[in-house]
Amino acid sequence: MDPITVAIICGGIGIGIAGFMARYVLRQDQGSDKIRQISAAIKEGALAFLRREYRVLAIFVTAVAIALGMIPLLGWWVSLVFVLGAIASAMAGFIGMNIAIRANSRTAAATQKSLNDGLKVSFRSGAVMGMCVVGIGILSLSALYLTFGNSPDFLKIIPAFGFGASSVAIFARIGGGIFTKAADTGADIVGKVEKSIPEDDPRNAAVIADFVGDNVGDVAGMGADLFESYVSSIIATMALGMVAVFSINLGESLVPDISTAWFLPMLVAAGGIIASIIGIFAVRVGGKAAKMGALLNALRRGTVIASILTAVFAFLAVYFLNVNIGVFWAILAGLTAGVLIGESTNYFTSYSYKPTLQISNAAQTGAGTLITRGFANGLMSTLPPILLVVGTMLIAHHFAGIYGIAIAGVGMLATLGIQDATDAYGPVADNAGGIAEMAGLPPEVRDRTDALDALGNTTAATGKGFAIGAAGLTALALLLAYTQAVGIKFSDISLLDPKVIGGIFLGAMIPAVFCAMTLNAVGKTSFSIVNEVRRQFREIKGLMEGRAKPEYGKCVDICTKAAINQMIGPGILTIAAPIVVGLILGPVALGGFLIGAVACGFILAVTFANAGGSWDNAKKWIETGAYGGKGSEAHKAAVIGDMVGDPMKDTSGPSLNILIKLMAIVSLVLAPVLAGFGGLI
Amino acid sequence: MDPITVAIICGGIGIGIAGFMARYVLRQDQGSDKIRQISAAIKEGALAFLRREYRVLAIFVTAVAIALGMIPLLGWWVSLVFVLGAIASAMAGFIGMNIAIRANSRTAAATQKSLNDGLKVSFRSGAVMGMCVVGIGILSLSALYLTFGNSPDFLKIIPAFGFGASSVAIFARIGGGIFTKAADTGADIVGKVEKSIPEDDPRNAAVIADFVGDNVGDVAGMGADLFESYVSSIIATMALGMVAVFSINLGESLVPDISTAWFLPMLVAAGGIIASIIGIFAVRVGGKAAKMGALLNALRRGTVIASILTAVFAFLAVYFLNVNIGVFWAILAGLTAGVLIGESTNYFTSYSYKPTLQISNAAQTGAGTLITRGFANGLMSTLPPILLVVGTMLIAHHFAGIYGIAIAGVGMLATLGIQDATDAYGPVADNAGGIAEMAGLPPEVRDRTDALDALGNTTAATGKGFAIGAAGLTALALLLAYTQAVGIKFSDISLLDPKVIGGIFLGAMIPAVFCAMTLNAVGKTSFSIVNEVRRQFREIKGLMEGRAKPEYGKCVDICTKAAINQMIGPGILTIAAPIVVGLILGPVALGGFLIGAVACGFILAVTFANAGGSWDNAKKWIETGAYGGKGSEAHKAAVIGDMVGDPMKDTSGPSLNILIKLMAIVSLVLAPVLAGFGGLI
Repeated sequence: MDPITVAIICGGIGIGIAGFMARYVLRQDQGSDKIRQISAAIKEGALAFLRREYRVLAIFVTAVAIALGMIPLLGWWVSLVFVLGAIASAMAGFIGMNIAIRANSRTAAATQKSLNDGLKVSFRSGAVMGMCVVGIGILSLSALYLTFGNSPDFLKIIPAFGFGASSVAIFARIGGGIFTKAADTGADIVGKVEKSIPEDDPRNAAVIADFVGDNVGDVAGMGADLFESYVSSIIATMALGMVAVFSINLGESLVPDISTAWFLPMLVAAGGIIASIIGIFAVRVGGKAAKMGALLNALRRGTVIASILTAVFAFLAVYFLNVNIGVFWAILAGLTAGVLIGESTNYFTSYSYKPTLQISNAAQTGAGTLITRGFANGLMSTLPPILLVVGTMLIAHHFAGIYGIAIAGVGMLATLGIQDATDAYGPVADNAGGIAEMAGLPPEVRDRTDALDALGNTTAATGKGFAIGAAGLTALALLLAYTQAVGIKFSDISLLDPKVIGGIFLGAMIPAVFCAMTLNAVGKTSFSIVNEVRRQFREIKGLMEGRAKPEYGKCVDICTKAAINQMIGPGILTIAAPIVVGLILGPVALGGFLIGAVACGFILAVTFANAGGSWDNAKKWIETGAYGGKGSEAHKAAVIGDMVGDPMKDTSGPSLNILIKLMAIVSLVLAPVLAGFGGLI
Repeated sequence: MDPITVAIICGGIGIGIAGFMARYVLRQDQGSDKIRQISAAIKEGALAFLRREYRVLAIFVTAVAIALGMIPLLGWWVSLVFVLGAIASAMAGFIGMNIAIRANSRTAAATQKSLNDGLKVSFRSGAVMGMCVVGIGILSLSALYLTFGNSPDFLKIIPAFGFGASSVAIFARIGGGIFTKAADTGADIVGKVEKSIPEDDPRNAAVIADFVGDNVGDVAGMGADLFESYVSSIIATMALGMVAVFSINLGESLVPDISTAWFLPMLVAAGGIIASIIGIFAVRVGGKAAKMGALLNALRRGTVIASILTAVFAFLAVYFLNVNIGVFWAILAGLTAGVLIGESTNYFTSYSYKPTLQISNAAQTGAGTLITRGFANGLMSTLPPILLVVGTMLIAHHFAGIYGIAIAGVGMLATLGIQDATDAYGPVADNAGGIAEMAGLPPEVRDRTDALDALGNTTAATGKGFAIGAAGLTALALLLAYTQAVGIKFSDISLLDPKVIGGIFLGAMIPAVFCAMTLNAVGKTSFSIVNEVRRQFREIKGLMEGRAKPEYGKCVDICTKAAINQMIGPGILTIAAPIVVGLILGPVALGGFLIGAVACGFILAVTFANAGGSWDNAKKWIETGAYGGKGSEAHKAAVIGDMVGDPMKDTSGPSLNILIKLMAIVSLVLAPVLAGFGGLI
């Protein structure tokens, strides 16, 4: 059978499974009227935000599309494919959120029956998003191949799809991230810290905004993000196809022809879809009275099965396409490193291990020492992923040249379908818990959703490890593809060239400035939220006593406006910086710039994700009763730590994954322009 | 006159001025018996720490010296010069601290008379250290030149001096930094936060440890650090002498002969000494009733005069040595960039400007938002120094090749004599204020020392900007010297080589891991201090009421042991990492490793220094009465922010400056060994 047909069939199966899961979710009971009301308010806010966000993005995408089309060396086909990439990415986020905002009430209702029922509804809604992301990804890349595969411009056109997807992803991640964290910390500061009312208490005016934030940030933003990761890794490998054929780094060619070099990543990804589906169906626990440990084991079993099957499918693809076996070792190295990075993330962020327990311990001497310890933990946690990424890169390169580096990234992301499902169900469970609290459901329901949420935190941490590891490899592959496309030879791009060194320094600065902008945006917006919630407590009579209702819409509105206004700056920075460096310092300096950005961005992304994760779980550990439990001085210190970590782990950190790839993709797309241009100085 | 004679004379004048200043300080009144007692306790603790620290360093230095001597390609001369560098660096720290622990009581006594008298004593004690650092630096380098200048091994021997100096510096910075910040935050947590007693209250058991810490960290540690910066920048330029003669990057040779290439950085530095002396004498304010603004202006005038004169002297040196005028432009670029980096640091950390005021403003919504804003500010503050360093590098390279990059670093550091004086008087004033508080001097004395201290914070921020900017340029120069020494050609070290990329990633990780270790060390130690101070309040009857005295010695002891134990790990990491990378991945990957470490280390160093500085000053701004002033909720939030910033700005941050240079120097010293070695894989 034609490999492209296989890919299309696998993608179709993915979409089919998504439809099946969606049907299951939508058939579930929506719960009481109260639950429905709350869920409707969340839905309204989330959809309103997405409408406004996408309107702004439409303007941006149109402007860039016109610019691309008018550059003679690129043209309107590039422009069109860019738009398609943007639409596909936006769609992945939209579909994921659409099911999530329907699954939250249903999960709350199902959890009233049992933990297992709750898991089933929330996990299946996550699977809808996971399967949509990978299905749309494979199908749209197949369609592009069928349309442009024989065009001499294929390698100019295909990166434009990644550019479109990444552009939408970065805005969605930043905008959603600002929204969710500003609402979350704003609600916590007034609710938990000042008024000492529980989380998600209906008297808190920011509580609906907080729930909306989970959906627009942790679901829609993440969906676009993961879609971008998935297609970028495949595109990076395709872009290095020539290298595989002409075996620039190795003695013999790796693939029989260029088409095979293009098919292979798609087939590996397609195999990963089938493996993920089997893994997803393997996630089940026996009986109604399942315990947390059993749930975690069930999820783990699913991902392990998916990983092993992906390796098997990848081997079959390599074998039947008559590809050099070295390429399989590269894929296997990526797949293995992904699992190990996930485990190391878990070690540094779970309260089952020493690092996070020590952070909880430091809470006894206050927020200052707790924050120092958590930040140190985040910095230390860069050690294993860096060693694993460097090791994978060297192994992959040894066996399969620079094509191997790219396809190792595909291997790492091949199980995205199930990873994404385990990631995306967390926010649904979180929302369900909030709805349970607001709707006044019995406390055991809240306990169950908390258990689901805690489990979601663990799997989310693992997922973040995967995402950043794969981002590192993909960004390197895109950078290498850029140097090929722009015609930089081995001896051209020397570390002894001051422009290259200057590029590295400038590149290292961009992630720092980007984080500064996004952290500030969250800081500013949560400041506004705090003042609004305080104002409502002050001005609305009877609110504290529960006799009046807060104006939830006001907080949703503040977050919406602020998030959309403040996503623009950092987004534009990401796209403009490589263009400016390329035009002023030239294409060689731009190569240095990209590597500086990848290295420093990787360090910051891992630090931010894991420091944030460990503060969150250090707080959770105290909430289990350690050091005085909830309400103690230690707990207050831990709440402050969690607030500091929130924008780091959910706004700046994940956006950095996109940033390092997007800057490389921009460079790759503009390579034909930059190739003929030496730089102004 | 022979240039080396000029250098020796200038160095001698520097030492003479140091003696003159020291004599002035020692002749001042030591104050009341109470003041003397407190000062004696500080002296005892500080000297005890230094004795123990230097004993450990002696073992380390001996071990490394034996190792160096036994490597056939290096030998015993290299080993001896390494030991001399270590001794010189230790001496610079020791002398500086010795005058500081005598000047603190005298400053307290003088401040009883007037602010101006206090400034004079403390500033002159700072000048002793400043002049000793530069004097010893120039004289020892001159002595090395006279002894080995004609030896064919000169370029192998001279970096060993920098290696010795940097090794001592990194341990002194880390050890002193852990001591001072653990004591400081430990004292603050129990005193300010829990017991609500004033800073430096005699009932606080950690208060003497805090004063000792100022001396061993901010004076002795900084002295070794600045000595290392100064000699490393000169050595890096000397090591690139061949490049200047054979004009590898430019069409014509820059200097008439190799000796001139070696003299020039020494002459520029020597001119800087004279310029600094003139600048120091220009620091005076008329009358007894001088105001803060006048003080700051006086200090600024001093540094501006020194900078202008340094430029003039540098021009004369270039002119009379018949050196290409391009070299002067490189020096001027470095000098100018140093001043501008200092200004930008001031902008980001002083409460006269928006960034720090916004952090104070965020205190209204608690420590969480304040910390996020401050951290964002630190990250954002990397923008100007990176642009300035990259700009300087490109300008210097344009006019004077890679030799120009090195000498731009010398230009930036040439005014170190006065910079150091304005830096080192801060801790003396801080100590004097503490003594005033403990001795129960009238409140106006404390107000005056606070004013001096605040002024010291401003100048210290500027000084930190200089230090990190120069560290970046020096590290780059050392890296380039390493590639020359190891025989790497332009086309050998390509960014397309996966080993180079792997090196960059590994290098970027080291500063993160180093910061994690040092932050953790402070966190752990301050945790012990808090528990000890709490124990004393609990167990010593009548302590809180002032009827009993705390056991100050216990806290000094805890800090001493912890600091010495925990300085070893990060210090060894710094020295071992480049050796391991060089041996396993080979000399080319080591080049990538160094650039990754410099880029990421620079970003973290600037972020840590400026985030820490702005939290400190945001707190100070609130203490002037903003948002409720001292004791308000906003103030408590700001105190937490300051605690988080303390180890960042005074332990990890400044140590990073040394780290990036030390790793490059280790590589340079080991270049003869690595050159014949391809790496294990």
